[in-house]
Amino acid sequence: MELTYHFRDPSLAILALTHRSAGKPNNERMEFLGDALLGAIVAEMLYETHPKASEGEMSRLRAQLVNGQALAEMARELELGDRLKLGSGELKSGGFRRDSILADAFEALVAAVYLDGGFEACRQTVRGLFADRVTALPRSSKDPKTRLQEWLQAEGWPLPQYELVGSEGEDHARIFDVNCVVMEPMAITAAGRGSSRRLAEQDAAEMVLSRLLDTRDSP
Amino acid sequence: MELTYHFRDPSLAILALTHRSAGKPNNERMEFLGDALLGAIVAEMLYETHPKASEGEMSRLRAQLVNGQALAEMARELELGDRLKLGSGELKSGGFRRDSILADAFEALVAAVYLDGGFEACRQTVRGLFADRVTALPRSSKDPKTRLQEWLQAEGWPLPQYELVGSEGEDHARIFDVNCVVMEPMAITAAGRGSSRRLAEQDAAEMVLSRLLDTRDSP
Repeated sequence: MELTYHFRDPSLAILALTHRSAGKPNNERMEFLGDALLGAIVAEMLYETHPKASEGEMSRLRAQLVNGQALAEMARELELGDRLKLGSGELKSGGFRRDSILADAFEALVAAVYLDGGFEACRQTVRGLFADRVTALPRSSKDPKTRLQEWLQAEGWPLPQYELVGSEGEDHARIFDVNCVVMEPMAITAAGRGSSRRLAEQDAAEMVLSRLLDTRDSP
Repeated sequence: MELTYHFRDPSLAILALTHRSAGKPNNERMEFLGDALLGAIVAEMLYETHPKASEGEMSRLRAQLVNGQALAEMARELELGDRLKLGSGELKSGGFRRDSILADAFEALVAAVYLDGGFEACRQTVRGLFADRVTALPRSSKDPKTRLQEWLQAEGWPLPQYELVGSEGEDHARIFDVNCVVMEPMAITAAGRGSSRRLAEQDAAEMVLSRLLDTRDSP
Protein backbone atom coordinates (compact mmCIF):
# COMPACT_ATOMS: atom_id res chain seq x y z
CA MET A 1 0.00 0.00 0.00
CA GLU A 2 1.22 3.45 -0.83
CA LEU A 3 0.26 7.01 -0.09
CA THR A 4 -0.59 8.35 -3.53
CA TYR A 5 -0.64 11.92 -2.32
CA HIS A 6 2.40 14.18 -2.75
CA PHE A 7 2.72 17.05 -0.32
CA ARG A 8 3.25 20.60 -1.51
CA ASP A 9 4.33 21.45 2.01
CA PRO A 10 6.32 18.47 3.33
CA SER A 11 6.56 20.05 6.79
CA LEU A 12 2.89 19.10 7.29
CA ALA A 13 3.72 15.44 6.67
CA ILE A 14 6.63 15.64 9.08
CA LEU A 15 4.45 17.22 11.76
CA ALA A 16 1.86 14.47 11.25
CA LEU A 17 4.54 11.88 12.01
CA THR A 18 5.85 13.65 15.12
CA HIS A 19 4.73 11.92 18.30
CA ARG A 20 4.26 13.93 21.45
CA SER A 21 7.24 12.19 23.06
CA ALA A 22 9.39 14.23 20.65
CA GLY A 23 8.12 17.48 22.19
CA LYS A 24 6.01 20.26 20.71
CA PRO A 25 4.69 20.90 18.13
CA ASN A 26 3.51 17.34 17.55
CA ASN A 27 0.72 15.47 15.80
CA GLU A 28 -1.86 15.47 18.60
CA ARG A 29 -4.01 18.32 17.29
CA MET A 30 -3.81 17.00 13.73
CA GLU A 31 -4.92 13.62 14.99
CA PHE A 32 -8.15 15.18 16.27
CA LEU A 33 -8.87 16.69 12.86
CA GLY A 34 -7.81 13.59 10.96
CA ASP A 35 -9.98 11.31 13.06
CA ALA A 36 -13.00 13.46 12.24
CA LEU A 37 -12.23 13.62 8.52
CA LEU A 38 -11.65 9.88 8.36
CA GLY A 39 -15.00 9.30 10.07
CA ALA A 40 -16.80 11.46 7.52
CA ILE A 41 -15.09 10.08 4.42
CA VAL A 42 -15.53 6.45 5.44
CA ALA A 43 -19.15 7.23 6.40
CA GLU A 44 -19.74 8.45 2.86
CA MET A 45 -18.13 5.31 1.39
CA LEU A 46 -20.44 3.10 3.43
CA TYR A 47 -23.43 5.29 2.60
CA GLU A 48 -22.74 4.60 -1.06
CA THR A 49 -21.72 0.95 -0.92
CA HIS A 50 -24.38 -0.18 1.57
CA PRO A 51 -27.57 1.50 0.40
CA LYS A 52 -29.75 -0.85 2.45
CA ALA A 53 -27.77 -0.72 5.69
CA SER A 54 -29.34 0.99 8.67
CA GLU A 55 -27.62 3.74 10.58
CA GLY A 56 -26.58 1.28 13.30
CA GLU A 57 -25.20 -1.15 10.75
CA MET A 58 -23.14 1.51 8.99
CA SER A 59 -21.88 2.69 12.32
CA ARG A 60 -20.70 -0.84 13.22
CA LEU A 61 -19.10 -1.33 9.82
CA ARG A 62 -17.24 1.93 10.22
CA ALA A 63 -16.00 0.90 13.67
CA GLN A 64 -14.69 -2.27 12.01
CA LEU A 65 -12.70 -0.20 9.50
CA VAL A 66 -11.70 2.74 11.67
CA ASN A 67 -10.29 1.58 15.00
CA GLY A 68 -6.87 1.66 16.59
CA GLN A 69 -5.82 -1.79 15.46
CA ALA A 70 -7.04 -1.44 11.88
CA LEU A 71 -5.43 1.97 11.47
CA ALA A 72 -2.17 0.73 12.96
CA GLU A 73 -2.18 -2.05 10.39
CA MET A 74 -2.66 0.46 7.60
CA ALA A 75 0.11 2.63 9.05
CA ARG A 76 2.41 -0.42 8.92
CA GLU A 77 1.50 -1.09 5.30
CA LEU A 78 2.43 2.52 4.58
CA GLU A 79 5.65 1.95 6.55
CA LEU A 80 4.97 4.96 8.72
CA GLY A 81 6.85 3.38 11.62
CA ASP A 82 10.20 4.05 9.98
CA ARG A 83 9.38 7.70 9.50
CA LEU A 84 7.94 8.48 12.95
CA LYS A 85 9.63 11.14 15.02
CA LEU A 86 9.74 9.83 18.60
CA GLY A 87 11.35 10.95 21.83
CA SER A 88 14.33 8.94 23.02
CA GLY A 89 12.27 7.02 25.59
CA GLU A 90 9.70 5.86 23.04
CA LEU A 91 12.49 5.06 20.60
CA LYS A 92 14.20 2.75 23.09
CA SER A 93 10.98 1.04 24.10
CA GLY A 94 9.99 0.45 20.47
CA GLY A 95 7.19 3.03 20.26
CA PHE A 96 7.34 2.86 16.46
CA ARG A 97 5.77 -0.57 16.71
CA ARG A 98 2.95 0.43 19.09
CA ASP A 99 -0.57 0.36 17.69
CA SER A 100 -1.75 3.55 19.34
CA ILE A 101 1.21 5.61 18.14
CA LEU A 102 0.89 4.24 14.61
CA ALA A 103 -2.88 4.76 14.46
CA ASP A 104 -2.53 8.35 15.70
CA ALA A 105 0.09 9.07 13.05
CA PHE A 106 -2.19 7.64 10.38
CA GLU A 107 -5.04 9.91 11.48
CA ALA A 108 -2.75 12.91 11.64
CA LEU A 109 -1.53 12.17 8.13
CA VAL A 110 -5.11 12.28 6.86
CA ALA A 111 -5.42 15.77 8.38
CA ALA A 112 -2.09 16.78 6.83
CA VAL A 113 -3.36 15.85 3.38
CA TYR A 114 -6.50 17.91 4.02
CA LEU A 115 -4.55 20.94 5.21
CA ASP A 116 -2.13 20.66 2.30
CA GLY A 117 -4.44 19.81 -0.58
CA GLY A 118 -8.04 20.38 0.50
CA PHE A 119 -11.01 18.08 0.97
CA GLU A 120 -11.10 16.47 -2.46
CA ALA A 121 -7.44 15.44 -2.25
CA CYS A 122 -8.00 14.07 1.23
CA ARG A 123 -11.16 12.25 0.17
CA GLN A 124 -9.46 10.62 -2.82
CA THR A 125 -6.50 9.56 -0.69
CA VAL A 126 -8.67 8.01 2.01
CA ARG A 127 -10.93 6.34 -0.53
CA GLY A 128 -7.88 4.85 -2.21
CA LEU A 129 -6.51 3.54 1.07
CA PHE A 130 -9.82 2.03 2.19
CA ALA A 131 -11.15 0.80 -1.15
CA ASP A 132 -10.14 -2.85 -0.75
CA ARG A 133 -11.24 -3.00 2.86
CA VAL A 134 -14.66 -1.55 2.06
CA THR A 135 -15.07 -3.98 -0.84
CA ALA A 136 -14.22 -6.86 1.50
CA LEU A 137 -17.02 -5.98 3.92
CA PRO A 138 -20.07 -8.24 3.96
CA ARG A 139 -22.62 -6.90 1.49
CA SER A 140 -25.87 -8.02 3.02
CA SER A 141 -25.42 -8.56 6.68
CA LYS A 142 -27.66 -10.63 8.87
CA ASP A 143 -30.77 -9.02 10.25
CA PRO A 144 -30.59 -7.38 13.69
CA LYS A 145 -32.60 -10.09 15.51
CA THR A 146 -30.20 -12.76 14.26
CA ARG A 147 -27.16 -10.67 15.14
CA LEU A 148 -28.49 -9.90 18.61
CA GLN A 149 -29.21 -13.57 19.20
CA GLU A 150 -25.75 -14.63 18.05
CA TRP A 151 -24.14 -11.93 20.16
CA LEU A 152 -25.97 -12.98 23.32
CA GLN A 153 -25.29 -16.67 22.67
CA ALA A 154 -21.59 -15.97 22.18
CA GLU A 155 -21.58 -14.32 25.60
CA GLY A 156 -23.55 -17.17 27.13
CA TRP A 157 -26.40 -14.82 28.04
CA PRO A 158 -30.14 -15.57 27.93
CA LEU A 159 -32.03 -14.69 24.75
CA PRO A 160 -34.16 -11.53 24.53
CA GLN A 161 -37.93 -11.33 24.84
CA TYR A 162 -40.02 -9.42 22.33
CA GLU A 163 -43.24 -7.87 23.63
CA LEU A 164 -45.92 -6.30 21.47
CA VAL A 165 -46.72 -3.02 23.18
CA GLY A 166 -49.45 -1.87 20.84
CA SER A 167 -50.30 -0.75 17.34
CA GLU A 168 -51.89 2.27 15.82
CA GLY A 169 -53.18 3.65 12.55
CA GLU A 170 -55.66 2.32 10.02
CA ASP A 171 -55.43 -1.28 8.90
CA HIS A 172 -53.65 -0.53 5.62
CA ALA A 173 -51.04 1.62 7.40
CA ARG A 174 -50.76 0.04 10.79
CA ILE A 175 -47.64 0.74 12.87
CA PHE A 176 -46.54 -1.78 15.49
CA ASP A 177 -44.71 -0.97 18.70
CA VAL A 178 -42.54 -3.68 20.20
CA ASN A 179 -40.17 -3.82 23.13
CA CYS A 180 -37.05 -5.95 23.07
CA VAL A 181 -36.06 -6.90 26.59
CA VAL A 182 -32.75 -8.33 27.75
CA MET A 183 -32.80 -9.20 31.45
CA GLU A 184 -29.38 -10.57 32.30
CA PRO A 185 -26.63 -9.81 33.10
CA MET A 186 -27.82 -6.24 32.63
CA ALA A 187 -31.36 -5.06 32.07
CA ILE A 188 -31.90 -3.36 28.72
CA THR A 189 -35.25 -2.52 27.18
CA ALA A 190 -35.53 -0.84 23.82
CA ALA A 191 -38.58 0.18 21.84
CA GLY A 192 -38.95 -0.49 18.14
CA ARG A 193 -41.60 0.27 15.59
CA GLY A 194 -42.40 -0.81 12.10
CA SER A 195 -45.12 -1.56 9.60
CA SER A 196 -45.16 -5.21 10.70
CA ARG A 197 -44.54 -6.93 13.98
CA ARG A 198 -41.41 -8.51 12.52
CA LEU A 199 -40.01 -5.16 11.36
CA ALA A 200 -40.76 -3.60 14.74
CA GLU A 201 -38.88 -6.46 16.41
CA GLN A 202 -35.89 -5.96 14.09
CA ASP A 203 -35.94 -2.28 14.91
CA ALA A 204 -35.97 -2.94 18.66
CA ALA A 205 -33.23 -5.58 18.36
CA GLU A 206 -31.07 -3.07 16.48
CA MET A 207 -31.42 -0.59 19.35
CA VAL A 208 -30.50 -3.19 21.97
CA LEU A 209 -27.49 -4.25 19.91
CA SER A 210 -26.18 -0.74 19.64
CA ARG A 211 -26.59 -0.18 23.37
CA LEU A 212 -24.76 -3.41 24.12
CA LEU A 213 -21.95 -2.38 21.81
CA ASP A 214 -21.81 1.12 23.33
CA THR A 215 -21.47 -0.42 26.77
CA ARG A 216 -18.70 -2.64 25.53
CA ASP A 217 -16.74 0.23 23.94
CA SER A 218 -16.82 2.48 26.98
CA PRO A 219 -13.92 2.31 29.41
CA MET B 1 -31.03 31.88 11.90
CA GLU B 2 -31.54 30.77 8.36
CA LEU B 3 -30.33 28.03 6.07
CA THR B 4 -28.46 29.95 3.42
CA TYR B 5 -28.22 26.96 1.13
CA HIS B 6 -30.73 26.43 -1.70
CA PHE B 7 -31.27 22.88 -2.85
CA ARG B 8 -30.97 21.93 -6.47
CA ASP B 9 -32.80 18.72 -5.64
CA PRO B 10 -35.44 19.61 -3.01
CA SER B 11 -36.34 15.92 -2.55
CA LEU B 12 -33.07 15.55 -0.60
CA ALA B 13 -34.20 18.24 1.86
CA ILE B 14 -37.58 16.55 2.21
CA LEU B 15 -35.96 13.19 2.88
CA ALA B 16 -33.72 14.82 5.51
CA LEU B 17 -36.82 16.00 7.34
CA THR B 18 -38.63 12.65 7.18
CA HIS B 19 -38.59 10.88 10.54
CA ARG B 20 -38.66 7.11 10.66
CA SER B 21 -42.16 7.19 12.17
CA ALA B 22 -43.34 8.30 8.71
CA GLY B 23 -42.08 5.04 7.16
CA LYS B 24 -39.31 4.39 4.67
CA PRO B 25 -37.31 5.96 3.15
CA ASN B 26 -36.51 8.28 6.04
CA ASN B 27 -33.65 10.38 7.34
CA GLU B 28 -31.87 7.76 9.47
CA ARG B 29 -29.11 6.93 7.01
CA MET B 30 -28.58 10.59 6.18
CA GLU B 31 -28.29 11.34 9.86
CA PHE B 32 -25.30 8.97 10.07
CA LEU B 33 -23.55 10.79 7.25
CA GLY B 34 -24.51 14.24 8.52
CA ASP B 35 -23.29 13.52 12.02
CA ALA B 36 -19.87 12.56 10.62
CA LEU B 37 -19.66 15.61 8.35
CA LEU B 38 -20.67 17.92 11.17
CA GLY B 39 -17.99 16.40 13.37
CA ALA B 40 -15.31 17.03 10.74
CA ILE B 41 -16.36 20.55 9.81
CA VAL B 42 -16.68 21.71 13.42
CA ALA B 43 -13.35 20.00 14.20
CA GLU B 44 -11.73 22.12 11.50
CA MET B 45 -13.31 25.30 12.88
CA LEU B 46 -11.91 24.57 16.34
CA TYR B 47 -8.55 23.60 14.88
CA GLU B 48 -8.38 27.07 13.35
CA THR B 49 -9.89 29.16 16.14
CA HIS B 50 -8.12 27.40 19.04
CA PRO B 51 -4.53 26.97 17.86
CA LYS B 52 -3.29 26.34 21.39
CA ALA B 53 -5.97 23.88 22.47
CA SER B 54 -5.00 20.28 23.06
CA GLU B 55 -6.75 17.40 21.38
CA GLY B 56 -8.78 16.73 24.54
CA GLU B 57 -9.78 20.36 24.83
CA MET B 58 -10.96 20.57 21.22
CA SER B 59 -12.84 17.36 21.70
CA ARG B 60 -14.67 18.79 24.73
CA LEU B 61 -15.41 22.05 22.94
CA ARG B 62 -16.86 20.12 20.04
CA ALA B 63 -19.06 18.08 22.36
CA GLN B 64 -20.32 21.39 23.74
CA LEU B 65 -21.32 22.53 20.25
CA VAL B 66 -22.43 19.25 18.73
CA ASN B 67 -24.77 17.39 21.05
CA GLY B 68 -28.45 16.50 20.94
CA GLN B 69 -29.63 19.50 22.89
CA ALA B 70 -27.52 22.07 21.05
CA LEU B 71 -28.49 20.69 17.65
CA ALA B 72 -32.16 20.61 18.61
CA GLU B 73 -31.89 24.28 19.54
CA MET B 74 -30.37 25.07 16.14
CA ALA B 75 -33.10 23.04 14.45
CA ARG B 76 -35.67 25.17 16.28
CA GLU B 77 -33.99 28.38 15.16
CA LEU B 78 -34.21 27.06 11.60
CA GLU B 79 -37.87 26.21 12.29
CA LEU B 80 -37.35 22.64 11.14
CA GLY B 81 -40.12 21.42 13.47
CA ASP B 82 -42.82 22.83 11.22
CA ARG B 83 -41.41 21.05 8.21
CA LEU B 84 -40.79 17.61 9.73
CA LYS B 85 -42.57 14.65 8.23
CA LEU B 86 -43.75 12.48 11.11
CA GLY B 87 -45.96 9.44 11.50
CA SER B 88 -49.40 9.98 13.03
CA GLY B 89 -48.31 8.70 16.45
CA GLU B 90 -45.38 11.10 16.70
CA LEU B 91 -47.56 13.91 15.37
CA LYS B 92 -50.13 13.39 18.11
CA SER B 93 -47.54 13.12 20.86
CA GLY B 94 -45.76 16.29 19.68
CA GLY B 95 -42.69 14.63 18.17
CA PHE B 96 -41.89 17.84 16.28
CA ARG B 97 -40.90 19.36 19.61
CA ARG B 98 -38.68 16.48 20.76
CA ASP B 99 -34.95 17.20 20.98
CA SER B 100 -33.79 13.88 19.54
CA ILE B 101 -36.04 14.10 16.48
CA LEU B 102 -35.04 17.71 15.83
CA ALA B 103 -31.32 17.03 16.28
CA ASP B 104 -31.47 14.04 13.93
CA ALA B 105 -33.22 16.15 11.29
CA PHE B 106 -30.55 18.82 11.63
CA GLU B 107 -27.80 16.27 11.09
CA ALA B 108 -29.62 14.75 8.14
CA LEU B 109 -30.00 18.19 6.61
CA VAL B 110 -26.24 18.67 6.76
CA ALA B 111 -25.85 15.43 4.80
CA ALA B 112 -28.50 16.56 2.33
CA VAL B 113 -26.53 19.74 1.59
CA TYR B 114 -23.41 17.63 1.06
CA LEU B 115 -25.17 15.21 -1.28
CA ASP B 116 -26.79 18.07 -3.19
CA GLY B 117 -23.97 20.58 -3.42
CA GLY B 118 -20.71 18.90 -2.42
CA PHE B 119 -18.31 19.40 0.46
CA GLU B 120 -17.57 23.10 0.00
CA ALA B 121 -21.27 24.02 0.02
CA CYS B 122 -21.80 21.87 3.11
CA ARG B 123 -18.76 23.34 4.83
CA GLN B 124 -19.83 26.91 4.18
CA THR B 125 -23.35 26.18 5.39
CA VAL B 126 -22.17 24.55 8.60
CA ARG B 127 -19.59 27.27 9.23
CA GLY B 128 -22.29 29.89 8.77
CA LEU B 129 -24.61 28.14 11.20
CA PHE B 130 -21.93 27.62 13.86
CA ALA B 131 -19.98 30.86 13.47
CA ASP B 132 -21.54 32.73 16.38
CA ARG B 133 -21.41 29.73 18.67
CA VAL B 134 -17.75 29.10 17.95
CA THR B 135 -16.95 32.77 18.52
CA ALA B 136 -18.74 32.61 21.86
CA LEU B 137 -16.53 29.76 23.11
CA PRO B 138 -13.93 30.60 25.74
CA ARG B 139 -10.67 31.49 23.98
CA SER B 140 -8.05 30.47 26.46
CA SER B 141 -9.41 27.86 28.75
CA LYS B 142 -8.01 26.99 32.12
CA ASP B 143 -5.17 24.53 32.30
CA PRO B 144 -5.99 20.84 32.78
CA LYS B 145 -4.83 20.68 36.44
CA THR B 146 -7.17 23.53 37.33
CA ARG B 147 -10.05 22.04 35.38
CA LEU B 148 -9.54 18.62 36.97
CA GLN B 149 -9.43 20.16 40.43
CA GLU B 150 -12.61 22.16 39.81
CA TRP B 151 -14.35 19.14 38.40
CA LEU B 152 -13.48 16.95 41.39
CA GLN B 153 -14.42 19.70 43.87
CA ALA B 154 -17.78 20.19 42.14
CA GLU B 155 -18.44 16.47 42.65
CA GLY B 156 -17.27 16.61 46.25
CA TRP B 157 -14.46 14.15 45.52
CA PRO B 158 -10.94 14.17 46.97
CA LEU B 159 -8.23 15.98 44.98
CA PRO B 160 -5.74 14.05 42.83
CA GLN B 161 -2.19 13.18 43.75
CA TYR B 162 0.69 13.79 41.36
CA GLU B 163 3.63 11.41 41.58
CA LEU B 164 6.94 11.89 39.81
CA VAL B 165 7.69 8.51 38.26
CA GLY B 166 11.03 9.38 36.73
CA SER B 167 12.84 11.41 34.16
CA GLU B 168 15.13 10.67 31.27
CA GLY B 169 17.35 12.30 28.72
CA GLU B 170 20.21 14.76 29.01
CA ASP B 171 19.83 17.76 31.26
CA HIS B 172 19.04 20.22 28.46
CA ALA B 173 16.34 17.93 27.06
CA ARG B 174 15.02 16.15 30.10
CA ILE B 175 11.60 14.50 29.91
CA PHE B 176 9.58 13.99 33.08
CA ASP B 177 7.11 11.19 33.72
CA VAL B 178 4.34 11.85 36.19
CA ASN B 179 1.30 9.89 37.30
CA CYS B 180 -1.93 11.60 38.24
CA VAL B 181 -3.87 9.44 40.68
CA VAL B 182 -7.51 9.78 41.65
CA MET B 183 -8.47 7.29 44.36
CA GLU B 184 -12.15 7.84 45.11
CA PRO B 185 -14.89 7.16 44.27
CA MET B 186 -13.20 5.33 41.42
CA ALA B 187 -9.53 4.62 41.00
CA ILE B 188 -7.97 6.27 37.96
CA THR B 189 -4.27 6.56 37.26
CA ALA B 190 -2.96 8.24 34.14
CA ALA B 191 0.58 8.84 33.00
CA GLY B 192 1.77 12.15 31.62
CA ARG B 193 5.04 13.41 30.28
CA GLY B 194 6.56 16.74 29.46
CA SER B 195 9.71 18.80 29.39
CA SER B 196 9.04 20.02 32.93
CA ARG B 197 7.42 18.46 35.94
CA ARG B 198 4.56 20.98 35.68
CA LEU B 199 3.92 20.17 32.02
CA ALA B 200 3.99 16.45 32.76
CA GLU B 201 1.40 17.00 35.51
CA GLN B 202 -0.83 18.99 33.14
CA ASP B 203 -0.53 16.19 30.63
CA ALA B 204 -1.52 13.55 33.17
CA ALA B 205 -4.39 15.69 34.47
CA GLU B 206 -5.70 16.04 30.93
CA MET B 207 -5.79 12.24 30.56
CA VAL B 208 -7.63 11.76 33.84
CA LEU B 209 -10.14 14.45 32.86
CA SER B 210 -10.90 12.82 29.57
CA ARG B 211 -11.37 9.42 31.21
CA LEU B 212 -13.71 10.94 33.78
CA LEU B 213 -15.73 12.59 31.03
CA ASP B 214 -15.80 9.37 28.99
CA THR B 215 -17.15 7.51 31.99
CA ARG B 216 -19.81 10.16 32.45
CA ASP B 217 -20.93 10.02 28.81
CA SER B 218 -21.26 6.27 28.62
CA PRO B 219 -24.66 4.72 29.27
